[in-house]
Amino acid sequence: MPHATTVTLTGHLMDTGILARVLDDVLEYGGDYLIEHLDVGRQHADESRALVRISAPDAELLERIVMRLQTHGANAVDPGTATLRPAPTDGVFPEDFYSTTNLRTYVRLDREWLPVDRAEMDCGLVVGERDGREGGRILVRTVPVSDVRAGEQVVCGAHGVRVEMPPTVARGDEEEFSFMSSAASSEKPQVVLVRQIAERMREVRAAGQKVLWVGGPAIVHTGAAPAMVRLVEAGYVDILFAGNALATHDIESALYGTSLGVDLAKGAGVPHGHEHHIRAINTIRRAGSIAAAVDSGVLTGGVMHAMVRAGKPFVLVGSVRDDGPLPDVHTDVLEGQRAMRAHLPDVGFAIMLATMLHAIATGNILPAAVPLVCVDINPATVTKLADRGSAQATGIVTDIGLFLEQLARELT
Amino acid sequence: MPHATTVTLTGHLMDTGILARVLDDVLEYGGDYLIEHLDVGRQHADESRALVRISAPDAELLERIVMRLQTHGANAVDPGTATLRPAPTDGVFPEDFYSTTNLRTYVRLDREWLPVDRAEMDCGLVVGERDGREGGRILVRTVPVSDVRAGEQVVCGAHGVRVEMPPTVARGDEEEFSFMSSAASSEKPQVVLVRQIAERMREVRAAGQKVLWVGGPAIVHTGAAPAMVRLVEAGYVDILFAGNALATHDIESALYGTSLGVDLAKGAGVPHGHEHHIRAINTIRRAGSIAAAVDSGVLTGGVMHAMVRAGKPFVLVGSVRDDGPLPDVHTDVLEGQRAMRAHLPDVGFAIMLATMLHAIATGNILPAAVPLVCVDINPATVTKLADRGSAQATGIVTDIGLFLEQLARELT
Amino acid sequence: MPHATTVTLTGHLMDTGILARVLDDVLEYGGDYLIEHLDVGRQHADESRALVRISAPDAELLERIVMRLQTHGANAVDPGTATLRPAPTDGVFPEDFYSTTNLRTYVRLDREWLPVDRAEMDCGLVVGERDGREGGRILVRTVPVSDVRAGEQVVCGAHGVRVEMPPTVARGDEEEFSFMSSAASSEKPQVVLVRQIAERMREVRAAGQKVLWVGGPAIVHTGAAPAMVRLVEAGYVDILFAGNALATHDIESALYGTSLGVDLAKGAGVPHGHEHHIRAINTIRRAGSIAAAVDSGVLTGGVMHAMVRAGKPFVLVGSVRDDGPLPDVHTDVLEGQRAMRAHLPDVGFAIMLATMLHAIATGNILPAAVPLVCVDINPATVTKLADRGSAQATGIVTDIGLFLEQLARELT
Amino acid sequence: MPHATTVTLTGHLMDTGILARVLDDVLEYGGDYLIEHLDVGRQHADESRALVRISAPDAELLERIVMRLQTHGANAVDPGTATLRPAPTDGVFPEDFYSTTNLRTYVRLDREWLPVDRAEMDCGLVVGERDGREGGRILVRTVPVSDVRAGEQVVCGAHGVRVEMPPTVARGDEEEFSFMSSAASSEKPQVVLVRQIAERMREVRAAGQKVLWVGGPAIVHTGAAPAMVRLVEAGYVDILFAGNALATHDIESALYGTSLGVDLAKGAGVPHGHEHHIRAINTIRRAGSIAAAVDSGVLTGGVMHAMVRAGKPFVLVGSVRDDGPLPDVHTDVLEGQRAMRAHLPDVGFAIMLATMLHAIATGNILPAAVPLVCVDINPATVTKLADRGSAQATGIVTDIGLFLEQLARELT
Repeated sequence: MPHATTVTLTGHLMDTGILARVLDDVLEYGGDYLIEHLDVGRQHADESRALVRISAPDAELLERIVMRLQTHGANAVDPGTATLRPAPTDGVFPEDFYSTTNLRTYVRLDREWLPVDRAEMDCGLVVGERDGREGGRILVRTVPVSDVRAGEQVVCGAHGVRVEMPPTVARGDEEEFSFMSSAASSEKPQVVLVRQIAERMREVRAAGQKVLWVGGPAIVHTGAAPAMVRLVEAGYVDILFAGNALATHDIESALYGTSLGVDLAKGAGVPHGHEHHIRAINTIRRAGSIAAAVDSGVLTGGVMHAMVRAGKPFVLVGSVRDDGPLPDVHTDVLEGQRAMRAHLPDVGFAIMLATMLHAIATGNILPAAVPLVCVDINPATVTKLADRGSAQATGIVTDIGLFLEQLARELT
Repeated sequence: MPHATTVTLTGHLMDTGILARVLDDVLEYGGDYLIEHLDVGRQHADESRALVRISAPDAELLERIVMRLQTHGANAVDPGTATLRPAPTDGVFPEDFYSTTNLRTYVRLDREWLPVDRAEMDCGLVVGERDGREGGRILVRTVPVSDVRAGEQVVCGAHGVRVEMPPTVARGDEEEFSFMSSAASSEKPQVVLVRQIAERMREVRAAGQKVLWVGGPAIVHTGAAPAMVRLVEAGYVDILFAGNALATHDIESALYGTSLGVDLAKGAGVPHGHEHHIRAINTIRRAGSIAAAVDSGVLTGGVMHAMVRAGKPFVLVGSVRDDGPLPDVHTDVLEGQRAMRAHLPDVGFAIMLATMLHAIATGNILPAAVPLVCVDINPATVTKLADRGSAQATGIVTDIGLFLEQLARELT
Repeated sequence: MPHATTVTLTGHLMDTGILARVLDDVLEYGGDYLIEHLDVGRQHADESRALVRISAPDAELLERIVMRLQTHGANAVDPGTATLRPAPTDGVFPEDFYSTTNLRTYVRLDREWLPVDRAEMDCGLVVGERDGREGGRILVRTVPVSDVRAGEQVVCGAHGVRVEMPPTVARGDEEEFSFMSSAASSEKPQVVLVRQIAERMREVRAAGQKVLWVGGPAIVHTGAAPAMVRLVEAGYVDILFAGNALATHDIESALYGTSLGVDLAKGAGVPHGHEHHIRAINTIRRAGSIAAAVDSGVLTGGVMHAMVRAGKPFVLVGSVRDDGPLPDVHTDVLEGQRAMRAHLPDVGFAIMLATMLHAIATGNILPAAVPLVCVDINPATVTKLADRGSAQATGIVTDIGLFLEQLARELT
Repeated sequence: MPHATTVTLTGHLMDTGILARVLDDVLEYGGDYLIEHLDVGRQHADESRALVRISAPDAELLERIVMRLQTHGANAVDPGTATLRPAPTDGVFPEDFYSTTNLRTYVRLDREWLPVDRAEMDCGLVVGERDGREGGRILVRTVPVSDVRAGEQVVCGAHGVRVEMPPTVARGDEEEFSFMSSAASSEKPQVVLVRQIAERMREVRAAGQKVLWVGGPAIVHTGAAPAMVRLVEAGYVDILFAGNALATHDIESALYGTSLGVDLAKGAGVPHGHEHHIRAINTIRRAGSIAAAVDSGVLTGGVMHAMVRAGKPFVLVGSVRDDGPLPDVHTDVLEGQRAMRAHLPDVGFAIMLATMLHAIATGNILPAAVPLVCVDINPATVTKLADRGSAQATGIVTDIGLFLEQLARELT
């Protein structure tokens, strides 16, 4: 294996298992490794530092391995400078484009390391023209493949790119958001977890950051909408990402007192849906938008009503299974993604409730530095989220209805 | 199909779907049917009455079908008198023994219908000697196959046996325990359900009946033990059925502050167990029993401690995966079943929490007339319980920790 | 309750439990019923006929109940003639629009019953101008709310609409596709089920109808793609509905030999994804389309390649969590739904594999008359599909990889 | 923290993540660590060696931590000699007894390291009298708490005990049973996994070792019994551990052609059970045993019949939910565990199918050196097994019916 390079890793390598994952990935990709140096954190508060020489049968694979290792925060010891190539046509990257991680990223064109505007997985890095507004600095933008334009300069290969792990704290440290290190489990003391989440939300708000909520229709079906309304009114829901279903069933519930055939006040339900949801959608379509329906007095309760009243934004993105949909729903998913991205700056905490589709969609575009809690009664949702690269995700397997009731009680 | 008989069904046949199930079973067993008469409840408060002629290719199959239909409350129009045959040896029924349902049952030997002592599925009916204590009446006992003695007179075939459905109320009736008719679902307004269960427990206690709890170790792992302790102290836990695991982890938690490696106060957990549980078991074995450990001051907290202090009985039955076990655990499962049966009289309500094994075991011996709520985060547990014949089971798919917290808040 | 009307039901009311569901729904909606007449199928091959008088506190609710009962095949005895009202604006129905079922539907404007063009749930019925091509007959079209245009005449209320249940066969009948009546279960003899599905596919093909496949990416992850390729080549996959993920991972697997980090040949996998999928997408974007990539020799294997080679159509519809997406993907979900609808005529059988999103989306637009099998390792997918109105859905809880291997062995 | 000791670890510490787990556990127990020395395997084939100094606030906790670390293969650098204390009464260990791991273990009384007779978790070590049969060597036995007798000498504390990790192979090595390192997942190429298991079974048989099967009733419900019969006949099932349910439903199926109401030949099933199983049990009870029923011609097919015919042993252990049970079932769970232990010598491979209870029970008593595959359609079963200490467990989430069909095809 003649092609080789050395990467460096710093942090809590031992007790987080990150070194093991790095070595694992090298072998997985068909490369090999040699640990050149390992300066171990002797005590659990100390950081470790490793130098690992990576070899691969060809240069292309070596570059791919190095890019891969960056998802764990490993950087080349000798990063060199970035190679730029123009995008061949609109919506297409050069073949060997650098594929981004969700970590804070820097690009070096000649001497200086330029910060990349934002962190998102599976995008390309586009190096822009010198921009007057930025005081003459060169802008490096994270761009999804659908948004690149022909001729834009795209970073290619792994050279000249560096990532930064979010600061983690060693296990056992008291200031830690301690459940963060736990895997998804239904066998955790849930009451304690709820208290920790409440505490974190208060801190985020105190720090002037935003709390992002991502929710599925089970919020309504489990009767948790009143608890969520209280949280909206108390100022703990700064932005809401959802699909047509959450908004529709919330509005259906406000208009008809039912949600997918469940009479919420009586607690008796039928397993099959009925036509109420499509009538609710038609009513809002006639009003023109959810906000218009609130203003005109057509919609007088529920989560969406509370968001409108509180002046808080929401992004609803459609899916192929939608009926209607509501007039506020982005039916083009790329436009929906763009609308979601526009709300991410200033988000300091994200909570995802009972939705696999929108949780993964948000996980895809969220920087690794934003703590993220995923709450679902189905362990698979949480596991899938973590498996897809949102390593900062904490899973809580619990009942949404009782969870939100408890959270609202802590915070309001 | 020359062999035929007619059965009768009474009750809310239409809106409960019971007639459909009866007809279904006839075909399933290879018989055929003819609806001779159907006097339909015209309104939903009215009862219906059906006469269905059942035919089968041979007499033995016909008898088996008729026995089967009794599990739905169908009785032969011309029941005849019971055939008795002696048990050939200890622990063996005659080949064509009548296999019981969990419904109130009567046996006719000549003219009179004799009530059977208790209702339990999959047992035999043993007709005893005239017994002085009962004022000269013949006793008919429900006996599991392991407990029958050679020579005892066992009811054989379907003749001379009649069952009685528990009084059900039509759907929509206000007095109904309304969620009873719902299938297992995680999409139900859980807060309302908790309130209904609390209400039912108060009624049962007011009526002088007992509340039976059946629990698994997740009660401890989810941090719900303090909530359950409050419910024990408030008098809402009259009997507890469990395995070695619930008691062990509860005691481990009281002695070491941990449960399967989960530090309950901090909310941080490790996925793997450790040796604390086997030390906890050893400690109680040295004390001689859980009660002795409470009396000697070794055990000072937790659910088992609260049960002992409140003077409430518990039955712990072992399983093949047990470590230890605790000295109170029945290691012989048949003896364990007998100990459980001895506590069933006066039970007016049963609640099963986070245990598939003990929930099914209890469902097996519980009369159909006792309402039963099964709470688990895993929908499969609830479904399995209902599938095995406990048709009165109501499933609630929710988080045990938050559920018990909420229930304790309602009741204490 | 002064407002009342009488509906009629015909079919296997007893052994299918349909009458129970009808009565249930009346109470659920807050109405009441009176069974005026019940002509019971005496034997299981006979059909039953019921006349049920429905009453409700107000006329609007009564109409809603009658519409609801049509989802079970119940029609008003005195249907009257349809009320038409113009759509107030584009994309909005009149308030009391008739909401469709997925059953064959007829509308009566004056005397004659006009057949509706196609069956789909939760749409409106638009009565068109006399159309020369149809020999002067008035066309009644099923239109989703997003596609209605201002001023189009829309059927309102429940009058003048009649539905037809698909012909069902009584339980136990030998010609029946017998597992159709079973609920989702992992405890079924899977080998027999596979054989029955193979048999049904052969029949559908022999009848000149089409087999529709709806698939998720687990087809690739479980290593089942080669089996599916054989089924495509053998002519058993006439149309494929999927999302970006199935096509992407299939193509990634063809280009890189991996699927979400799983090395398919060795059987060793890593739980986390990597950047191969985004490179695969970029490669196809550069080619212009999947077909172009096949034609230019870039893509030489996998399911999508086989579909292109066989000249069989596929519809890929995007979702908010997509990376890329592939150039063939409809990013607008309404356009995606329209593309799917265009392929439904002539579909005689639908099979859905390991996808909840696309299975529900297809279930939403599929007529009830098309048999539908849903195969997933997760019981919840199957249950959700049936709960949302696709009553004809049969669920099979099994492993996709072994299932397709077995099915390919039966059919090729 | 004045109390401290140093432990040593050897093996593939980096790429298996074992060092991370060791450090994690130290903190979890409330101790602290200092990595004194780390001689890292530079390449992935090399072993690493670590010296870690463990400190704790008191001597007792330090001993507990050292015992805990032994479950990961860590041994004290200066192990000292074992402390022995007599068991205070029958069935009770001394308070500070050494709690065993499932690793190969050695005890040092003065100079020499004595091998312990067998490896099992959560037991004590009893040092026996000099035993003539062993050539005068002192025997050290692994004894469950229920089996210790008053006065027997029990190893206490962590001194003088050493464990040995089973030889593992580095990731990526070609000879490795490669899927062993994968976590439970339904998204694996199942066909490849089946082939690997078949290969492993052939090797174990060729080496003169035994294949242990542990099975649940779903083997019968999924129609997989014929495939398993072929595997029994081909000599791949040396021992079977199960409960009453597998044997009962297998025998019910042989006698009545049904299993829990599923007609296996037709593929149509009903979700509820019926009385066939209790009749099947009664029939075998009358025969005296399963073997007697085979000999007398009462039982002529199925898995249990095949085991009897092949002269292969089985251990059936009862549970509290059993009906009957069959006469071969151990109703005392401790006797059942003893019977299972007696069959473990010579087991070279264990496969667990669709049973959580018996899989965990077997995992509890199985040495870590025996490879173990757990197959279930429910991911939770596999996860639970691994969580309870059976780290060598490999999970396969798949359909039992199709899995056994495929395995039988590979092996017969």
